[in-house]
Amino acid sequence: MVGGDLCRFGILTASDRANAGDYEDLSGPAIEGFLSDAISSSWEVIRRVVPDEQSQIEEALCDLADNQKCSVIVTTGGTGPAPRDVSPEATYAVCERILPGFGEQMRSVSLKYVPTAILSRQIAGIRGSSLIINLPGTPRSIREILDEIFAAVPYCVDLIGGPYITTHSEVVNSFRPPHARRE
Amino acid sequence: MVGGDLCRFGILTASDRANAGDYEDLSGPAIEGFLSDAISSSWEVIRRVVPDEQSQIEEALCDLADNQKCSVIVTTGGTGPAPRDVSPEATYAVCERILPGFGEQMRSVSLKYVPTAILSRQIAGIRGSSLIINLPGTPRSIREILDEIFAAVPYCVDLIGGPYITTHSEVVNSFRPPHARRE
Amino acid sequence: MVGGDLCRFGILTASDRANAGDYEDLSGPAIEGFLSDAISSSWEVIRRVVPDEQSQIEEALCDLADNQKCSVIVTTGGTGPAPRDVSPEATYAVCERILPGFGEQMRSVSLKYVPTAILSRQIAGIRGSSLIINLPGTPRSIREILDEIFAAVPYCVDLIGGPYITTHSEVVNSFRPPHARRE
Repeated sequence: MVGGDLCRFGILTASDRANAGDYEDLSGPAIEGFLSDAISSSWEVIRRVVPDEQSQIEEALCDLADNQKCSVIVTTGGTGPAPRDVSPEATYAVCERILPGFGEQMRSVSLKYVPTAILSRQIAGIRGSSLIINLPGTPRSIREILDEIFAAVPYCVDLIGGPYITTHSEVVNSFRPPHARRE
Repeated sequence: MVGGDLCRFGILTASDRANAGDYEDLSGPAIEGFLSDAISSSWEVIRRVVPDEQSQIEEALCDLADNQKCSVIVTTGGTGPAPRDVSPEATYAVCERILPGFGEQMRSVSLKYVPTAILSRQIAGIRGSSLIINLPGTPRSIREILDEIFAAVPYCVDLIGGPYITTHSEVVNSFRPPHARRE
Repeated sequence: MVGGDLCRFGILTASDRANAGDYEDLSGPAIEGFLSDAISSSWEVIRRVVPDEQSQIEEALCDLADNQKCSVIVTTGGTGPAPRDVSPEATYAVCERILPGFGEQMRSVSLKYVPTAILSRQIAGIRGSSLIINLPGTPRSIREILDEIFAAVPYCVDLIGGPYITTHSEVVNSFRPPHARRE
């Protein structure tokens, strides 16, 4: 068992109803539950809830990345084709580069469960030393996706200059090439 | 059996040869044949043929969306890498947002049949309350793709403010989340 | 056995270390080895090594396409999320159109071997009559990808006005639709 570094995660729920208090935010806790199950190195989390407004999502992403120094920021909600779904637009606007493999694989994972996964516009990208990933709004889909894609997140964080994250291999069998592994 | 609403479809064939009358348009009828097999709610169709000119494809898409109020517009032809293939460019130009899952899944479906499916640049996107989908030009490929992707089209049309479409489940087992289903 | 035309290939290694001579370029030779195994028509190759500088990659791509008349240009290296990885940006900047199916399928192939393939940002596109394809930097990944995607390359080159390439079918079973085959 190799030690890792402290990593800060940001979880951003974009939801008009959760923000207004009409609806309990179940998605943010689902993501936090996954992190709790998966990560074996030290970590802490900052959670935010905002309405489905592009400017407010962008502000929250920038704050979590630039001021709060979150190495990984996961958004939930607002990824569909409806007019109020703007999380991908906000993410695109604040990222310096996009990692198209995340959107492709996340949709591919969800398509195994439901044909309407084709409608998701979720993306992932990099802002400074932060990896930002969009997830859909339903707790079940969140878990299905994180179970498959998280294996690549620790090495991605290495490559953008973040802390060394380790995972419980029975939950997430994260991968680094041999030269990137700590002894 | 639940009733649906009347839905208008647009079918746009982009083909220099079909437009010049050198070649019978088989693709447009193939799409109409699929709709006839698949849709159980009321529908009507408007068909157009234009040459492979980006400006004429854009004009036809805008007319079908804005004036003819087609909720779903399917193009056929012009999706490859050749210089006269410009349907994706025209679609991109008139859409407010792109749904990348369609291009990904359509290529993935066609790759099961032919390795040159990797060359297709087909996309889908939303203009106002219209979903626009690019299909390739061969009737066999059209059917292979529609058989798999159409399951998500009715719910997508719901989300962008269009009519409630129902399908014959033995042809297309279209999916909506429970909260979106009519009793 | 049908005769083909002479085709010129460009191989561009983007690597700070290979360019400085700190590291032997193994990726360029791996690509050339694949071409040697796969192509049955006449071919020749031009190889270049540049550092991970976007402007130098762009210059080399333009020279290989415009002056050297390479019909297919394969880059290796610089496709990940690290700040010095800029091959996709350079490729995007010099191409007139992108073929998104290549990036999707190349990541999909590599994901069968390693979960961090999701991090690759590799793309392919067209500049004039040249097809430009980004590959990752490790020889094993290069071969895994070329073995699967090269089947569509000869027909793509046909469509953009290049020479007729033929392959050894036991290595690469390249595909053309019947109307595009030479007797």
